[in-house]
Amino acid sequence: MSLKLYGYWRSSASYRVRIALNLKGLKYDYVPVHLVKNGGEQYSADYKKLNPAMLVPSFVDDDEDITLNQSLAIIEYLDEKYPSDVQLLPEHTLDRARIRMICQDIACDIQPVANLRVLTKLKNELGASEDEAKKWVLDFIISGFDALEKRLRTRAGKYAYGYSVSMADLCVVPQVYNAIRFGVDMSKYPVIAKVYNNCQQLDAFIQAAPENQPDAM
Amino acid sequence: MSLKLYGYWRSSASYRVRIALNLKGLKYDYVPVHLVKNGGEQYSADYKKLNPAMLVPSFVDDDEDITLNQSLAIIEYLDEKYPSDVQLLPEHTLDRARIRMICQDIACDIQPVANLRVLTKLKNELGASEDEAKKWVLDFIISGFDALEKRLRTRAGKYAYGYSVSMADLCVVPQVYNAIRFGVDMSKYPVIAKVYNNCQQLDAFIQAAPENQPDAM
Repeated sequence: MSLKLYGYWRSSASYRVRIALNLKGLKYDYVPVHLVKNGGEQYSADYKKLNPAMLVPSFVDDDEDITLNQSLAIIEYLDEKYPSDVQLLPEHTLDRARIRMICQDIACDIQPVANLRVLTKLKNELGASEDEAKKWVLDFIISGFDALEKRLRTRAGKYAYGYSVSMADLCVVPQVYNAIRFGVDMSKYPVIAKVYNNCQQLDAFIQAAPENQPDAM
Repeated sequence: MSLKLYGYWRSSASYRVRIALNLKGLKYDYVPVHLVKNGGEQYSADYKKLNPAMLVPSFVDDDEDITLNQSLAIIEYLDEKYPSDVQLLPEHTLDRARIRMICQDIACDIQPVANLRVLTKLKNELGASEDEAKKWVLDFIISGFDALEKRLRTRAGKYAYGYSVSMADLCVVPQVYNAIRFGVDMSKYPVIAKVYNNCQQLDAFIQAAPENQPDAM
């Protein structure tokens, strides 16, 4: 078995997949793709072969000769292909649906509208100032977290969905990491903050943290 | 069994779920939530109970006493809970992963950065002109379709993934509908266009089309 993850230390989507690989106990090679240096290494001809959309992460499983993009698709693949003590999605359809919903709240409605690609375009093409770009990010994180806090309140236990780690936590933690970086006051989100802090006690999350990657600067 | 979908005729995410319900042969009540009229009906106190994120769609299955948001989570729920001749995700893990990847290419990286919520913010807060806002949408659809065309080329048959309709088609069709509305030249994307045209022959897609909804104007 040979698994390879092409990612960027600060990319939320790469971070999600790193946590999944660690939780599943899967060894993998990490290949940094620097999103800023050299005009963005994701635009290189070699990387385009891995992902025509020129976004990270890309994941290669030589065992199946498969290359995948899209963090949530990769995580569900890992969960289906490599059963282990840690199942990132439980058996029951209702639980699976509610967990996927939390993941998509973040991966569809918060992260993509407040990432580097969008910020760069705001500044370069619409002449947004640093302050305007920062406000844009904060607005989307804050409105997203206002909703997410309510969403989690009913079913969060120690983790985002009950008392076992699930795919939901893999999305919550990188988004909170990002929110803190942008100065969001997490005391307004006690449930999200609790989940974040509990996850940060686990080795799989610690080892996946941006600062602990070889490409961290 | 009583199923209810709260949606908006032009919302891609609502459109995806309508197609899924039709393909699965499930009867449902459609409740329009007008995203523009009355300052946006999604901001009403009643709607907020269905979705704290104040986005469409919301889906209620009285049978399970469950309310769900997020189109892809709803679609996978329908597929798991209501097996039928039409399976929107096949059995095999590799196929499932590749189909989810196509869906997320659209639902994470194209649609959210070019929807009404973002456009309104661009215009109201950053002073973008109509032309600048339109260019913003076109840029993201075009770069997204450039990648998607390559992605589909290897495995598309009559439909986005092989010769059976899958969850991938449910994402492709509403995004193409949107692209055409914004004047994208679809002749540059022969594979995407073929998939779109083939899907448009099917009753489930025709009945789900925005123009055929009671709230279409």
